[in-house]
Amino acid sequence: MSEPGADFLDAVHWDARGLVPVIAQEDATGQVLMLAWMNREALAATVTQGVAVYWSRSRGRLWRKGEVSGHVQTVRELRLDCDGDTVLLRVEQHGGIACHTGRARCFFQRLTDDGWVSDEPVLKTPQSIYTDHDHA
Amino acid sequence: MSEPGADFLDAVHWDARGLVPVIAQEDATGQVLMLAWMNREALAATVTQGVAVYWSRSRGRLWRKGEVSGHVQTVRELRLDCDGDTVLLRVEQHGGIACHTGRARCFFQRLTDDGWVSDEPVLKTPQSIYTDHDHA
Repeated sequence: MSEPGADFLDAVHWDARGLVPVIAQEDATGQVLMLAWMNREALAATVTQGVAVYWSRSRGRLWRKGEVSGHVQTVRELRLDCDGDTVLLRVEQHGGIACHTGRARCFFQRLTDDGWVSDEPVLKTPQSIYTDHDHA
Repeated sequence: MSEPGADFLDAVHWDARGLVPVIAQEDATGQVLMLAWMNREALAATVTQGVAVYWSRSRGRLWRKGEVSGHVQTVRELRLDCDGDTVLLRVEQHGGIACHTGRARCFFQRLTDDGWVSDEPVLKTPQSIYTDHDHA
């Protein structure tokens, strides 16, 4: 994607922390992979670099998704909702693993009569994904 | 769906406001329709009633999606992410309209070289959807 002017950043309704929630959806399958957060700098970097760059709330820094794991998300499309307060990314998920637990996506727990039950397989152990045990 | 015990509410990592972001995805198509928020009461009501009940941050009350518009969301599946801080609903979207603008979904703006551009049609005008001009 080439780059729109910086005005697109002003159209986003950043919350009190300067963040916006971002949904990553796998382009090929339509699977919802994860939800993360971006600040202005992260969204600008995502558009410039063409890969998902989030704001890590736990680490307080930009988080280039896949920087350790290699599980980079190439961005195919960015969308904004009616209120301007949520972003939707259509991505190509490299390695087929979005979750730091080694599963295809973060939403691997389904509500059943017995509560939340994990019903999706671990494709790769976190130990083999992370040399430094950093988060995805 | 029958009802799990109340413990499933404790597995959710509610934010400082007691809320969790909830992604609604259309079950039949995989389209991501919208993002909204729930508190404990809203999530409990969603499970009990089998339809999406959100917490309206703007109105400060429970918001039974479609209560005015009729655009109810029947819940087919509830999922929780790895960190327990995002919920994913698979829903049947009644009326085929999730957005209060009268579009199929809220993510109707796509980022282009000219900024965010609306590229999805208004299926029904808000005036004809809302008798009292309440939000969806």
